[in-house]
Amino acid sequence: MTGVDLNADLGEGFGHWRLGDDDALLAVVTSANVACGFHAGDPSIMRRVCAAAAARGVRVGAQVGYRDLAGFGRRAIEYDPADLTADVLYQIGALDGFARAAGDRVRYVKPHGALYNRIVHDEAQAAAVVEAVGAYDATLPLLGLPGSAVLRLAAAAGLPTVAEAFADRAYTPDGRLVPRSTPGAVVHDPDLVCTRAVALARGEPIAAIDGSTIRVGARSICVHGDTPGAVELVTRVRDALRTADVPIEPFA
Amino acid sequence: MTGVDLNADLGEGFGHWRLGDDDALLAVVTSANVACGFHAGDPSIMRRVCAAAAARGVRVGAQVGYRDLAGFGRRAIEYDPADLTADVLYQIGALDGFARAAGDRVRYVKPHGALYNRIVHDEAQAAAVVEAVGAYDATLPLLGLPGSAVLRLAAAAGLPTVAEAFADRAYTPDGRLVPRSTPGAVVHDPDLVCTRAVALARGEPIAAIDGSTIRVGARSICVHGDTPGAVELVTRVRDALRTADVPIEPFA
Amino acid sequence: MTGVDLNADLGEGFGHWRLGDDDALLAVVTSANVACGFHAGDPSIMRRVCAAAAARGVRVGAQVGYRDLAGFGRRAIEYDPADLTADVLYQIGALDGFARAAGDRVRYVKPHGALYNRIVHDEAQAAAVVEAVGAYDATLPLLGLPGSAVLRLAAAAGLPTVAEAFADRAYTPDGRLVPRSTPGAVVHDPDLVCTRAVALARGEPIAAIDGSTIRVGARSICVHGDTPGAVELVTRVRDALRTADVPIEPFA
Amino acid sequence: MTGVDLNADLGEGFGHWRLGDDDALLAVVTSANVACGFHAGDPSIMRRVCAAAAARGVRVGAQVGYRDLAGFGRRAIEYDPADLTADVLYQIGALDGFARAAGDRVRYVKPHGALYNRIVHDEAQAAAVVEAVGAYDATLPLLGLPGSAVLRLAAAAGLPTVAEAFADRAYTPDGRLVPRSTPGAVVHDPDLVCTRAVALARGEPIAAIDGSTIRVGARSICVHGDTPGAVELVTRVRDALRTADVPIEPFA
Repeated sequence: MTGVDLNADLGEGFGHWRLGDDDALLAVVTSANVACGFHAGDPSIMRRVCAAAAARGVRVGAQVGYRDLAGFGRRAIEYDPADLTADVLYQIGALDGFARAAGDRVRYVKPHGALYNRIVHDEAQAAAVVEAVGAYDATLPLLGLPGSAVLRLAAAAGLPTVAEAFADRAYTPDGRLVPRSTPGAVVHDPDLVCTRAVALARGEPIAAIDGSTIRVGARSICVHGDTPGAVELVTRVRDALRTADVPIEPFA
Repeated sequence: MTGVDLNADLGEGFGHWRLGDDDALLAVVTSANVACGFHAGDPSIMRRVCAAAAARGVRVGAQVGYRDLAGFGRRAIEYDPADLTADVLYQIGALDGFARAAGDRVRYVKPHGALYNRIVHDEAQAAAVVEAVGAYDATLPLLGLPGSAVLRLAAAAGLPTVAEAFADRAYTPDGRLVPRSTPGAVVHDPDLVCTRAVALARGEPIAAIDGSTIRVGARSICVHGDTPGAVELVTRVRDALRTADVPIEPFA
Repeated sequence: MTGVDLNADLGEGFGHWRLGDDDALLAVVTSANVACGFHAGDPSIMRRVCAAAAARGVRVGAQVGYRDLAGFGRRAIEYDPADLTADVLYQIGALDGFARAAGDRVRYVKPHGALYNRIVHDEAQAAAVVEAVGAYDATLPLLGLPGSAVLRLAAAAGLPTVAEAFADRAYTPDGRLVPRSTPGAVVHDPDLVCTRAVALARGEPIAAIDGSTIRVGARSICVHGDTPGAVELVTRVRDALRTADVPIEPFA
Repeated sequence: MTGVDLNADLGEGFGHWRLGDDDALLAVVTSANVACGFHAGDPSIMRRVCAAAAARGVRVGAQVGYRDLAGFGRRAIEYDPADLTADVLYQIGALDGFARAAGDRVRYVKPHGALYNRIVHDEAQAAAVVEAVGAYDATLPLLGLPGSAVLRLAAAAGLPTVAEAFADRAYTPDGRLVPRSTPGAVVHDPDLVCTRAVALARGEPIAAIDGSTIRVGARSICVHGDTPGAVELVTRVRDALRTADVPIEPFA
């Protein structure tokens, strides 16, 4: 049986400001999406997280975002595609320096926030991200939403792609994420989150928001790390997967 | 006979703003100190300069600086050494991504501005820079001022070091740069700059500011690229070296 | 006869980088749109421009933009309206401090770049800008495009509004600017620019891009200051207005 | 009997990041040192804090700092004095816009962090700050350390000055703050903090770190708001002052 990967966002503080509990998350996840300084993260945090991840065998991925510290990368920006390619390449290289200094290297790339959402459908920005990853290292997997433009373009360009699912987010009947602004978009019941995580990991159907059942293919499950109670929820998901005999292992 | 390297600062624009004539300089120098986004430079500029440098066979060095865009890296900052190490490592990695994407890689590191001046004598900040370079790649040469703390500590740490000289700057009798605030600190006569460049390249003595003669050992000569007439001056220096049969070749 | 105002963007350098010739423009225009540090401009530049404008009797306007130094405020950003209001208010206040220190004050507000274009039609962002100006000083005029959402909402909120026209830009038959990406969008012939400036100032019809004639009501004419030959073009426009006996005078 | 003012730093988050509990502090202090966006704070936070302070009658002061978000304004920077004046003026004006929009205005200026410490002794930077405050509004008080260069220069320039004391910091026998790196520099016992606060407010002597007694003249007492338990400590200090019948009232 194929195992499932658990990924979470880490290193999202900046300077004097902290966000989330990186150390606690590193004890649970198998893949760490490390912020690279454009929407969050700074060099000292990146260095520390890369060292801690390497020590634990957690894979480090470049969580690349728009250049927007004030907006935490959550505001869509009309980038010139060439500038976006350059910004993404810059972030991957910067993080890779810390990963290499820790004896490892960046193992995958996962876009963040508004960029993540934008390249689900925006072909030009999606192509810009794919170009950046391919230019850096064409063996580096892109982690993203199944059915997104970015994964399709990445696959077409010969890059490895990895699909992820969200155990605590509701899906539409055609397998898209229900927007956060819609009631019911986020699943809050920890037991339900765990049940869905196990189903997702096994490739079994889950309930869409309208009650129909869908299948979401996913090699990795994303768990949010910056909300109150996040570490506890992630830990419960991990324990539920173990109880269900689903192997938990990094994809990269 | 050993050749001499010509290095200049490149890629020092930011966003909509340009500084210096990168293309013209790339046609003359053998080593390009490329700004890495902290005091100047942005990802799009870095990508373009790395590609152009690779196409011409010009070596790319990481021109690392303090995080101070508004001050162009020319204001001394009391960094925590660990933060300085992280900031330098980040910049080297970021630039290396572009160099690798262009089929080459970062060949050396040269600190910029206030950081350059600070680590001539500040042991803690010098050690922080040395740690960053060593952590990234212990075979990467550090380019700096002969007799500086940073080159001494780098050599002690087993890193390659390369000494540089300035053909258009006056020296004190003990081989230090005359501060810019002192009258006569900058040599403006192009003929004299060329004569000094040839002498420096040959290891011959030059006149210090008090008229005594000194020897400045230097494998590389730094030429300033952001002043009016800079490209012409650099071109004259190159031609003078050629006329004097001094081989011009990169050190890295 | 009512006079016409000439406005241009000033103070758009940042730190070590310069853009345009502020002093030369101040000798020609009657209103200076001064960048406030978010897309361009820094405190030292703002202080200098405000002092020079006050000395010449040139009116100072707050050229407010998105927080995007790397993109020069030319990238549309999906701002939360409350954050946009706060960002605009911040910029007006910051510039007003320098204007007051120079013995004058900010006389009007003109949005910049992508924000300017966005609030031609985006009601939410337009309302956010109007709220900022009204909260700062409800007697402060907003300078913008005739027919734009922002001028309409500003008028509805009781703010003074001032319409501007562009002598060097082509218009559609319904009085909108032809997008820069369309051939013929920019008028390059200086004589034609001058002829159109005089017509715009007199309220006479000008030719739209399809040859039909339109009237563009405008109390101010915007002249671009950051292109090669800009100062010469602005000077010719001013001279043409004087020759045509059109009074040139600030609106504020 | 003259009352004493209680001041604390507020609004020191940035974007997605929060720091301290602004609302809880506003319920206790009489003066709020509001960060102005250079070391911390952003326009949305500034707007919210100014509105909340105005609603409670808490005085708003401009907590001006070095331009160093990554370092939280805690790293000394070798500023050109003219640039420092401009940076300080910019921050005061920006905050004043929000204070005015809330129906109030900036009532005083208090430098932050490394700038605060620097201008205790650095005459050039102290003069730069004084020039900024005087240029903005020569009736605006400067809040700072008794005996500091900045208060001396401010007084010489005709600006009002207000001395502050720290109830939780140890003093040297000559009335200076014991550096944080020295053991015993911070008083952790809440009862002792309260006792010292009352003595400071009454102008009675307190014990210096060597056991001798000193008098620290102070019209305002600074309480730290960003440490765990800060709000409780501030509340206890306030209650102790009330119990001792010391009037608590803003100086501005």
